[in-house]
Order: sequence, then C-alpha cells, then structure tokens
Amino acid sequence: MMRTHYCGSLTEAQLDQTVTLCGWVHRRRDHGGVIFLDMRDREGLVQVVIDPDTPEAFATADRARSEYVLKIKGYVRKRYAGTENANMVSGQIEVLAKEIETLAVSETPPFPLNDEFSNVSEENRLKYRFLDMRRPEMQERMVFRSKVTSLIRNYMDRNGFLDVETPILTRATPEGARDYLVPSRTQPGSFFALPQSPQLFKQLLMVAGFDRYYQIAKCFRDEDLRADRQPEFTQIDVETSFMSDEDIMQMMEGLTVELFDTMLNVKFDKFPRMTYADAMRDYASDKPDLRIPLKLVDVADLMQDVEFKVFAGPAKDPKGRIAALRVPGAGELSRGQIDEYTKFVGIYGAKGLAYIKVNDLSQGVVGLQSPIVKFIEPIVLQLLERVGAENGDIVFFGADKAKVVNDAMGALRVKIGHDLKLATCEWAPMWVVDFPMFEETDDGKWTSVHHPFTLPKGSVEDMKTNPGQALSVAYDMVLNGTEIGGGSLRIYTLEMQKAVFEALGISDEEAEDKFSFLLDALKYGAPPHGGLAFGLDRLVMLMTGANSIREVIAFPKTKTAECPLTQAPAPVDANQLRDLGIRLREKPKAEATQN
Amino acid sequence: MMRTHYCGSLTEAQLDQTVTLCGWVHRRRDHGGVIFLDMRDREGLVQVVIDPDTPEAFATADRARSEYVLKIKGYVRKRYAGTENANMVSGQIEVLAKEIETLAVSETPPFPLNDEFSNVSEENRLKYRFLDMRRPEMQERMVFRSKVTSLIRNYMDRNGFLDVETPILTRATPEGARDYLVPSRTQPGSFFALPQSPQLFKQLLMVAGFDRYYQIAKCFRDEDLRADRQPEFTQIDVETSFMSDEDIMQMMEGLTVELFDTMLNVKFDKFPRMTYADAMRDYASDKPDLRIPLKLVDVADLMQDVEFKVFAGPAKDPKGRIAALRVPGAGELSRGQIDEYTKFVGIYGAKGLAYIKVNDLSQGVVGLQSPIVKFIEPIVLQLLERVGAENGDIVFFGADKAKVVNDAMGALRVKIGHDLKLATCEWAPMWVVDFPMFEETDDGKWTSVHHPFTLPKGSVEDMKTNPGQALSVAYDMVLNGTEIGGGSLRIYTLEMQKAVFEALGISDEEAEDKFSFLLDALKYGAPPHGGLAFGLDRLVMLMTGANSIREVIAFPKTKTAECPLTQAPAPVDANQLRDLGIRLREKPKAEATQN
Repeated sequence: MMRTHYCGSLTEAQLDQTVTLCGWVHRRRDHGGVIFLDMRDREGLVQVVIDPDTPEAFATADRARSEYVLKIKGYVRKRYAGTENANMVSGQIEVLAKEIETLAVSETPPFPLNDEFSNVSEENRLKYRFLDMRRPEMQERMVFRSKVTSLIRNYMDRNGFLDVETPILTRATPEGARDYLVPSRTQPGSFFALPQSPQLFKQLLMVAGFDRYYQIAKCFRDEDLRADRQPEFTQIDVETSFMSDEDIMQMMEGLTVELFDTMLNVKFDKFPRMTYADAMRDYASDKPDLRIPLKLVDVADLMQDVEFKVFAGPAKDPKGRIAALRVPGAGELSRGQIDEYTKFVGIYGAKGLAYIKVNDLSQGVVGLQSPIVKFIEPIVLQLLERVGAENGDIVFFGADKAKVVNDAMGALRVKIGHDLKLATCEWAPMWVVDFPMFEETDDGKWTSVHHPFTLPKGSVEDMKTNPGQALSVAYDMVLNGTEIGGGSLRIYTLEMQKAVFEALGISDEEAEDKFSFLLDALKYGAPPHGGLAFGLDRLVMLMTGANSIREVIAFPKTKTAECPLTQAPAPVDANQLRDLGIRLREKPKAEATQN
Repeated sequence: MMRTHYCGSLTEAQLDQTVTLCGWVHRRRDHGGVIFLDMRDREGLVQVVIDPDTPEAFATADRARSEYVLKIKGYVRKRYAGTENANMVSGQIEVLAKEIETLAVSETPPFPLNDEFSNVSEENRLKYRFLDMRRPEMQERMVFRSKVTSLIRNYMDRNGFLDVETPILTRATPEGARDYLVPSRTQPGSFFALPQSPQLFKQLLMVAGFDRYYQIAKCFRDEDLRADRQPEFTQIDVETSFMSDEDIMQMMEGLTVELFDTMLNVKFDKFPRMTYADAMRDYASDKPDLRIPLKLVDVADLMQDVEFKVFAGPAKDPKGRIAALRVPGAGELSRGQIDEYTKFVGIYGAKGLAYIKVNDLSQGVVGLQSPIVKFIEPIVLQLLERVGAENGDIVFFGADKAKVVNDAMGALRVKIGHDLKLATCEWAPMWVVDFPMFEETDDGKWTSVHHPFTLPKGSVEDMKTNPGQALSVAYDMVLNGTEIGGGSLRIYTLEMQKAVFEALGISDEEAEDKFSFLLDALKYGAPPHGGLAFGLDRLVMLMTGANSIREVIAFPKTKTAECPLTQAPAPVDANQLRDLGIRLREKPKAEATQN
C-alpha cells in the first residue's frame, strides 16, 4: 500500500513513528520560513510541517497548491504547547515531512473546498460533485450513510432475512405515480417499466416460501419534484410470512432503535402507537410531530348556533371541521407575527386565521382580545374552558372543510411549536396504525390509502357490504413529523383480493391484465404475509440533520430531474431510436433527413 | 410469531417439546389409517404424523392437498427404528400433530414441486416462478446467493470500503454494448441511459476522495442473449485509491479465498498469475481452464518448408499460427470421436482437424497412424519430439489465422480434457495479467481491450509513439475457464487520458461531448486509482454448480429478454408516450386514432 496511515486518524499513538500519508492539500500556510500543509483524506486532516532543512521536500511543498495530491513521508511529533487543535482527531500532533512526492497537480478549483466554502449554488456543486464531495461535511455524510446501510444489512441478516434482488426492468407497478419507461428492442412497441417499488415481487417471494426477505432497493417515480423528492430513491424493502402486524412493527422498531443508538447514541423507549383517527383528531395529521406538545381540540359542537357564518357553516357541514389550537403563553405574539401565520395557513387553503388572546380570564369576555369574540360571545367562555385556556395564552381557530382545517392547522401546530421552541425532545418516533382502507376521490369513487394489496380488517363479507368503513392492517413509522416507513399485512386469499378490487372499481379484465400473476399466485397456497418499506434517503437525511435528501445522495438529480455533472438526460442517435421502434414527436432538425 | 420453529431445522434437540410449525404440504401419504405429511418451509422438510386419535386434526389433514399452507401444533418424538431418514436434518424425528389449522388452500400446481418434478419447460418454470422457487433446489440457491452477498459485504466493510450508490438513470456509458434508454418527460427528445457499469461514477468517487468504494450494483446491457447473459445483471463493483495493482489483486483474491472457504469449505493456495501472452501461447485463451493440464505447443517454425499447404500457408503468414495439442494416452480415440471433434472445431471456423496417433515411436514413421504424416514426413519425428509425444498419445493440430487456431484449439483443449476426465482438480482460480492495451479492429483501427480509462504501462510518450505495443495494468480473475472478475488501474492524468483517446481515434470534440466531466475531474487532483468488478451471477452460478445464471436469479428474463411471469415488456397507453414526446414507428391499430 502507498500509505501507512490515513491523515485524519493519526494521533499521539503514532508519536515518534515514521509514517507515509497520501492526501489532498486542504490548506497551505507559510509562516516563519516554514510551510504548513493541512493534508486531507477520507478520515480527516493532519498538519504537516516542511522546513528548509529538507530542501527537496521544501521545494515540492513550495510548488504545491490547494487540492494537489501528495504522498508524504514524515515523522510524527507532538505539537508545540499552545498550538494544539482540540477540534481535530490529529490535533495533538503534527508530521515533520522528510520526503514529498507530487502524485497529481490541480488547477484552482471552481470553488474553495476548505473553510472558505460558502454561497456556492447547488447547480455548481452538482456540476463539480467530485469536488463538492471532497468537503469534510459531505465526506462525513456519505460515510454515515454507508455505515447506516451496513448496520441495516447486519440487523436483517441477523434476523434471518434473505437479501433477494428483484428486477429493475419490469412491468408497470400499481403505486399510481408515473412510471419511467424503457422501450424494448426485441419487442418494438412494448416497454419495460422501472419499478416504483418491488411490492408485487416481494409478495411473490413470500408465496415462493422465502419467509423473510429484505432488499435495499432502488425505486423510480417520474413525478414532479416540487417537494424534496428524487426520480430514483432507495428503499429498505422488507417482507415476511407468518408474522403479525405487531411482530413486524417490533422487528422494524428494533432496527430503528439500534440505528439511533449505534450512530447517534440516542436511546429510544418503546415507540408510542396512535390510531389514524386519534392522530387526525389531536394533530390533524397522519404523521404527527410529537416533539411539539400542542394538541388540537374539536369545538364544532359549540358553534352550531352562533350567528357567525365562518363558524356556523363548517359546524353544520358533515364534511366540515372546527379545530382550536391553544398555544400556552403565546399571548405576546404581535399583530405582524399573527399576520405571518395567517399567510402561512393560506398556503394550505385556509381563508383566514381566527384567534383569541387570553389576557385576563377573571374579567370574562372583557379580558379577551380578539376580532371574533363579538360574534361568538354566548359560547366563548365555554369554548375557552374546553381548550383549557389560561391567562397569557393565544388560541387559534380553523373552520372549513375538514381537509383544509387539517392541512392548515396541522401545519400551523408544528410551525408555531418550532418557532416558539416548544419542542420537548429532539427525537419523537411513533407508529400510526388503523388507517382507513380507502379514501374518497373527488368524483366519489374509492381509492386505496396504501395500495390495493393491503389486508383489510374484517371479513370478505364486510368488504363487500361496507367497504367505506374498512380499516386496514397498515402501519406507518413516523419520526419528527416525517413518515420514514410504512407497510401492512397483505391480502393472501383470492376472495379478499377480488373483493378489494371490486370496491376499487377495478374490473376483472383490468385485474387480469395487470395482476394476473398475483391472482395466480393466490391460488396456490399463499402464506399470510406482510411487510414494510423505509425510505433510506429520508432516514439518513433526518439522522444527519441535512436539509435535503440531495445532501445524502452521491449523485442526485436537480428539481428538474437533470444531472448537471453528466448532462443526463441527453439526445441520442436516430439509429438508436430506430432500433427501438420509436421516433420523437417533434423531430429535431438534425435528424429530419434520417427519419 | 405464528411458529416456534422452522420445519427443516427440527432435530433431536427438540425431542419431547411441543412445537408450532407453518409451512407447505410437500407430500402426503396415507398409511395404515395414519396420515403422513412432509411439511416444507425455507429451512427444509419435516415429517408430521396425524392419527385418528385427534379427530379434528385428522379431518383437517385429510382435506389437505399438495401446497396447502398449514399451521401445525404437535409433539416432537423419535421416529421408529428403521424409519429414520439420513438425508434430512430432521430425519431422526417426527412431529405428532395435535392441532392443525389450514392457513391457505391450493389448487393442483401446474407442475409438481416435490421429487416428481421433471421435464418442466423453462418457460413454464418462469411463468410460475413463485412455485418453481418453492422447490428445495431453488430455495437453496437463493439462500446461497444471499449468504454470498452478505459475506462479500462483510469483507468489504471490514476492509474499509464504503458502500456508495451510483445512479441508475444516467448518461450513456462507454462500455460499447447497446444501452437501455429511458425517455425524459421533462426534456422531451432527451434520454437517460441505464448504466452498463458504474465505471465513471466510481472513478469520480475516487477523485472525490472516498478512497475505497464498493457497491453490489445492477448493470444493464441491451445485447443479444445468445450466450448465457441477462439484460440486467449484478456486479460486485470495487474501486480504490493509492493502491497498486498487486494490492488490489491481493484484496480481491482474499475475498474469493474467504468465500470458497466459508461457503464450500474449499481451501485455495495463492492464485497463480499468468501473462496474457503466456496464456495465449499455452492455452490459446485469455481465460484458461487450468483444471485441464494439457498445453498447446507452437510448431509453425518446423512447418516453414513442408509441401503441405494447409501447414505451409499459416507457417509463413505473420498472422498465422500452427499449434499442436498432445493428449496423452488418447490414441484409442475412434474415427467417430475424431469426427465429432472435427465438427466441434468447425464451430470456431477451423476447416479441419489434423491428427497423428502415436502407436509405436520405436518404429519411426511407420509407427504413426495419421492422414497427414505423408505430407510432413521430413519433420514429423522432430515435431513429435517437440510436443513430447509418447506411445499411446494422439496429437491434434490447428493451422490457420491465429484467431481461428486460438478459438478452435483453445476450446478443443478444454472439451477433450473434460471428455476424457483429465481435470486435476475441482477448482482452478488464477489471474491473467499484462493484457494488451488495444486490439486491431477489422478496419485496421485500435480498440480498447478493456476500456479507454485503463492505465497503460509506460509513459505518455510511449503511448503517443507506439500505442500498438502498449500493455495495460489490467488483471482478470479466471475460475475454471470463466472470467469472474476483471479490472485495472485507471488513467489519472489528463495528458495520458488524452493520449489514449487519440490512439483510439476519439476526437477532442467527441471526448468533450461524452466525457467532459471525467476530463474535468482529472484537472483537479485525481489520485492514482484502480479497481475491479466481479460478476455476481456467474460467481454464484459456478459456486452452486447451476448450469445457467438464470438458475441463480429470482426473476430472470428469457433469451428474448421477456419475463413470462409479468409479461414484461408490454404495450403502454398512447397518453404515456405523448407525455414522453415519443411515438411508435409502427402504429398499432388500436392507437391509430389517438395519435
């Protein structure tokens, strides 16, 4: 090997040894006729000193610039008292260079990679990703991700899960997002689809008797990337047979506990469970951020007879909701701050944000400060009692269709909570369970909350007679208000699968066309089975405190699904398209004559 | 959990315990008023006995058919003396059933999954892959593969390699096979390519300073699948910085040694190294099967002046070769067998197969039996001395262009060796090194033997003046005549990369268009680096003794790149194509009105 040690791992343990290092010039200083190089590799930095007593090494160091690749042989010695650096693993020592070899030179990088790095556009960082990733922050993230991946595999191995690869070139999957398509050359006019998840394959692996399967699987969705999403993302994909939902949740909770303990030294208690109904009632969200102790309170029943239409309307609407959010001690919020929150809920469709400041309850209505009190005076004290208001509090109200109230007040709860630093802990994992099986679409049909293979509670008869009431045996793991994983038990009898397809309005023909192999599989002894998938990118993002999944992916795409590094996607030869039996709808001029 | 034990792992250790099993009915027998069920799960089989004393269980068992899924609670007891089965882990015991629950019923499978399985077409096996994989043979292979994968990851982790994911949606890679393309929706007319390998990304990861990278990576090639290939295959992809070719070979040899030891209890010595030149000379192959001890001997120099044109022509042709293959003790081969071998070499383009049977050397030429001796009489005894012939041997000759001789005689050497059971060992791993950098194409140009990023031996000046002579710092790992891995050191300076592109006739414009990001990366301090890729499918195939990589892939494609299970590829909606900005060249009639 060229090196004896990594730069960043040298400590006093190597004192008085001669070592050989390979790395990059992170920073160079000349001081008192001596050259100081901070040398960098994957493990971190070390200070190298070159003095004029070694003229050859000195001359080489003198030519070195930022990002030169050097091989340095030298002697490890203690730093002079007062020059130690407690922020570096190697901060107690330095290397006195004896020999230096320049392995590669570097032009001046397009942006600095040391402490001077700042304000570099993401586009530029991605274009020069091979430089951006040299920065210690990015190195640490990628090392962190690799360790997380390794720990996950270790845990799954230890628990008897088999790593089985499922196809990337496959058929359209039923997750409902847009598929990426791959034209077939051997069957012109036909296309493969890239998998949105290995859902059906992992179910087939259970039917095949593999009992416990996992895969760290690439998945693909051709979505609009407004949110923090990527065209390809990575899923920790798990499926088991003969296990209950409780067994599966415990298994995956165990993994999460181990990951946080090992990587972050964070100890978790048993994760709280919450039904979907309770989560919506108290947090107006199916992924509550439990770090924030605020809860919503339903008050529509008090508003039935008020004359104020903003409240009376939703109070009487079976699809309406009126929810109050009491924020203790936030009565000091300024008019400007309240205006900001009003704008914020507007993003979610709320038409306004009613509030009451509770100045002095002992004075009754007079002790309240609010534009709306006059409209609801008959019930306002009862209302405040319901929400448990105290002097110094502010209470916000959302009143609209339930969906608007949930979106707006759910988001407001979290935003105010973080703005006012009300979080009671750093990490709040939980399970949400008992999801509805279906939700109603705008045109009054049923659509799956998870996917059509989710096992409903109850019998086939229940499903046929009252699908709208069905709950599913599904579970989501939520961390700090983000869904990091979700799954369910699956349907494993033909009768139930057909009943669910029927509830979804999927005809026998359509089912046969798209899922004939699944229906076949259910005919030949499918075991009870279920599973779950975790989003690896999002999990690592949360654990590293990165602010986007792009920060924990080596070569991500931009929000327009492009790669600034390789310039993908790119035009291709007309011949290639001809081989595939396709042509462009708008012919580029250069190709017009060939077509 | 529903079960307490796996069926296949029960032994005398569970004697007298009550256990609960979940599994499939593998075989059912009724004998003396008692029902015997062989129950199967991932770990194997166990015999369950149900007697009429437990009428409910008996009735359930009586209804059970092959592939029913049952949950059985019962009591573990020793089998009666003489009824033990030494071929089963659980063969000393049986389970006396107390309670049986039918978890799922099964129709009669399209083919039997127990010992009666035979003569099922591969098409049918793939269509019902979820049943085919229930067979113990397939279960064992998939479990074996998962363990190999896990061992590889463990080894790489232990040696400081980071698992980094590289993109699947990327730009055309330079491996030279046909790319699978993915139309971009956000940039109509542009396409992603699926990677033929992560070659450039792993090099960029080295430039980014990650030092040691590995990935078990899906790769894609849209090739004709005549040979045993798949559109998507799995590669153990490795790259390192600051390591020599020797270091890299030792690292990967260590992995291979560990895999064979752990999985098969096979102990390897240090792998022999052989130069490409020696391999071609002695074995007429760059992937010699060293189990076969036969070697070729060049004899063209002896043939310069013979009057027999079949020999004299190639002897005088600078591109010709005449190679002799002595097969000790094979003088008994019949005329019919020799005819078969003549046909065999014909597949590789050989126009015939000359031979000499050595009956009795003491008689000189009279002791030889051969149609060609009369043409080469003056040199025949010298020839036989050269090849070391002894009484009872046969010597075959190939004389033609070197390529034809190498293809034909290389294959003949291996075929005869195996036919005559001459193999001296079961496993013969080795390294082939010192490959030529380039080979000549039919139109007289240079093309890369590996790829254009391979580091040549020698200087930039050597490359510019005499590219045809250049050897590369490349190495292939060969096992039993199959290449299972290959790699090289890579070019890490811009000057050398440009010189190699020039030798390949790649213009500056083309290089800039296709590889600008690599050229950029070489400007900013690229470390010396190199790596290797192993074919996981092929490695597992060899290790399990399977006769095709399709046998070690859960859901493979057929030779026409189709999936009989999911019916992929499949037609898609016209709307989807419109979104992607493409149309079919031949419009299917159903879509004609929509376009």
